[in-house]
Amino acid sequence: MRAKEFEYLLRNTGNSKKTITTRESDFPQWYQDVISASDLAENGPAKGSMIIKPYGYAIWEAIKAELDSRIKDLGVPNMYFPLFIPEGLLHKEASHIEGFAPEVAVVTHAGGKELEEKLVVRPTSETIIYDSFSKWIQSYRDLPLMVNQWANIVRWEMRPRLFLRSTEFLWQEGHTAHVDMSEADAMARQALEIYREVAESIMAIAVVAGEKSERERFAGANKTYTLEPMMQDGKALQFATSHNLGDTFSKAFDVKYSAEDGSVKPVWQTSWGMSTRSIGGLIMSHSDDKGLVLPPKIAPLKAVITTVGGDNTDVKEMAANLADQIAEVVLVDDRDISPGEKFYAYEKRGVPVRIEIGPRDLEAGQVIFVLRDTGEKKTIAITEVSKALTLELEQMQDRLFTKAQQRQKTNTVECSTEEEAIAAVKAGKFALVDFTVDNRLEDLLKKDHGITVRCYPFDSPDKTILAKAY
Amino acid sequence: MRAKEFEYLLRNTGNSKKTITTRESDFPQWYQDVISASDLAENGPAKGSMIIKPYGYAIWEAIKAELDSRIKDLGVPNMYFPLFIPEGLLHKEASHIEGFAPEVAVVTHAGGKELEEKLVVRPTSETIIYDSFSKWIQSYRDLPLMVNQWANIVRWEMRPRLFLRSTEFLWQEGHTAHVDMSEADAMARQALEIYREVAESIMAIAVVAGEKSERERFAGANKTYTLEPMMQDGKALQFATSHNLGDTFSKAFDVKYSAEDGSVKPVWQTSWGMSTRSIGGLIMSHSDDKGLVLPPKIAPLKAVITTVGGDNTDVKEMAANLADQIAEVVLVDDRDISPGEKFYAYEKRGVPVRIEIGPRDLEAGQVIFVLRDTGEKKTIAITEVSKALTLELEQMQDRLFTKAQQRQKTNTVECSTEEEAIAAVKAGKFALVDFTVDNRLEDLLKKDHGITVRCYPFDSPDKTILAKAY
Repeated sequence: MRAKEFEYLLRNTGNSKKTITTRESDFPQWYQDVISASDLAENGPAKGSMIIKPYGYAIWEAIKAELDSRIKDLGVPNMYFPLFIPEGLLHKEASHIEGFAPEVAVVTHAGGKELEEKLVVRPTSETIIYDSFSKWIQSYRDLPLMVNQWANIVRWEMRPRLFLRSTEFLWQEGHTAHVDMSEADAMARQALEIYREVAESIMAIAVVAGEKSERERFAGANKTYTLEPMMQDGKALQFATSHNLGDTFSKAFDVKYSAEDGSVKPVWQTSWGMSTRSIGGLIMSHSDDKGLVLPPKIAPLKAVITTVGGDNTDVKEMAANLADQIAEVVLVDDRDISPGEKFYAYEKRGVPVRIEIGPRDLEAGQVIFVLRDTGEKKTIAITEVSKALTLELEQMQDRLFTKAQQRQKTNTVECSTEEEAIAAVKAGKFALVDFTVDNRLEDLLKKDHGITVRCYPFDSPDKTILAKAY
Repeated sequence: MRAKEFEYLLRNTGNSKKTITTRESDFPQWYQDVISASDLAENGPAKGSMIIKPYGYAIWEAIKAELDSRIKDLGVPNMYFPLFIPEGLLHKEASHIEGFAPEVAVVTHAGGKELEEKLVVRPTSETIIYDSFSKWIQSYRDLPLMVNQWANIVRWEMRPRLFLRSTEFLWQEGHTAHVDMSEADAMARQALEIYREVAESIMAIAVVAGEKSERERFAGANKTYTLEPMMQDGKALQFATSHNLGDTFSKAFDVKYSAEDGSVKPVWQTSWGMSTRSIGGLIMSHSDDKGLVLPPKIAPLKAVITTVGGDNTDVKEMAANLADQIAEVVLVDDRDISPGEKFYAYEKRGVPVRIEIGPRDLEAGQVIFVLRDTGEKKTIAITEVSKALTLELEQMQDRLFTKAQQRQKTNTVECSTEEEAIAAVKAGKFALVDFTVDNRLEDLLKKDHGITVRCYPFDSPDKTILAKAY
């Protein structure tokens, strides 16, 4: 199946950066180079802003589609709240504004006039959404109230990095209100499970799921749940979070309901989000020194059919026929340019399978598959291409996830002392420690060593994961 | 097929406004009442802002899906540009900033500091996109360069109305660059054709397609193409527009390419957009004094299965079984509340078909279909429900489009004099005039009578459509 929207790749594949630094020599530079070589994103004109280019946006669309259907299956519909939050609303919950005040962008003028009340560009939407919840919720019959929105978010960043930290990013934010604490907590956990499913089954990313320390909680939350995958340099990336907000916001925003017994009670709330930051995690989980590596389920293009051996009409025709027979989204590149240039264009973009076809293949009734992750070449009979492709994609998906899991497992070290833990993290590992990391120690580790508490893992809640993090 | 994300309708259907003003007595109030009764949107906390509620957002998602696949089929991929435009960029093209300056919102402070350069919240993205185009385009081999983005837009509105004019709205904006004027013009026309197809075939809205007058062109465009459907009160609504930008922006932003002959030339550009405003057009095209009427192809829920005759387990079970058999998205409402309350909840929301089932229907092996647009009731054998529903939806879709076309045709009056035209428009009609409406007359009609030039229709380009407009 061909998709016209990828044909632009046949025009401007030559523009992007040619050389990619190795991971070993300079991991942060490698990350930038991969993004540039695969043309996922670039800096925008205002400091810290990001332009998400078509190939990067297609990855986001794939993530979005997977998340969106799962969120809807939980019974949570999408809606849309305004970008601008009146300053007064943002200030209603003290710990929340304390957390976000240093990061907000403020609109002071509009329509040629100075505004009476300043408008904050949403750094997250709890305040504006719960202001509405307070109007919409009257009775227990209105609960649970569950909504989600896909939106752009602005948080001022001092040290911007593409996908990981930019002044504006895209995300979804779910917000729910419940009759009691346990239902709210179950909802927050369910949301995290969705994120875990998308991370593991679709993006092939191995994650540790757990609860955040008090210090690392979302501003205003009772509990914050998190996914913490390990990047190839051994650092953690906070991938997605889900918050049990307790009744903090419902008290601040007066979100109350009358219960069956007639008493009036505050609702129990959750919020949860996953953003374009996850694309940074995808890149740093799988990619290699040749460029992007994409798990097939998230790859915008599953394969590229490249003609080789010059401008041959029969070969071109066969390439086109093949594309029409294949159920997966593929691109045909039958340009008469050097094979090396062609191969490199799709290798650096992480297209899972390159299908080469030349005059001799045509004669022999075969094509060559080249697998992006292993570099392996396979000869496939022309009649078997569609079936073989599906199989190779499935196997690559499993292979990448297994590899990510093994890396995370191998590089997670059980430690019983502070010294061991520090040494482990400095060697690029996750330290799983069984001693208590109290607030004092947490502050100290962060200040002296740049080491943070990532989470108390669900599967060993008495232990703590320590690591450096993005 | 049941979709969990609509089950919230079983909780809070009772909240919304009960009475709807008739169209005849007060059309603008009717419009507000329909939106409120069907719970599509409401005002946000900041003046002029809009909260798009789940049912309204589901309509937007349906519109989006239809447009998005058609845009991709044109070979235009999605991407994402920043929300904030440095003020200097916006000022690069003189006529453009002249048009938009009075409407912009400005960020002056961020991250706790006053910004060195103010940031404008995008009122449209030509300037920030063409700044990038100037970097991306070098050679004729890079052309055409075509991108689209789904984004939120901010334009300060003095007289806000839900969907029609709000300080923030959602849209897609396509932007393309071409080697010559004719290719650019063809692209602008193709984009309008997509809009026409979605308007007519999906939203069942009758449109006049044509070119805007010089006065009504987009700020900076050579030509603006437009769709102008007639609302039920005889006013026009600008539904979607597409602009042939000529080389105005490419000259201002230095977007040049080297041609095959080595000469360096400015590119020819287009931009085109369709927004949440179209939902206002949808409402005012089809809805009636009972509430929303939705063409089946755009309705989030195609049918609701309502149990009647009390709390009966067999009936509930049958309703559930039916829902699973039906290919279309349906909701089951088996609450034991008054039938009147149930019926009204879905009538005002414009659910195309209500399928009633009670104990006697169960015995007789039948259900009752009630069609939203005509109110007609039909008895359908239980074994025929899925097939009959598909057929009824198709017929309703056609019926609504035919009705809209006939209304627009009947209420378009050919006029040969100014007086005739003014009288026709004042009687709630479109005047199709064969005399020349020059700039002087256009200004006069607008000032004295609130009548505007809607377009020069493609199918009679020597004539002019005059009408009042939203």
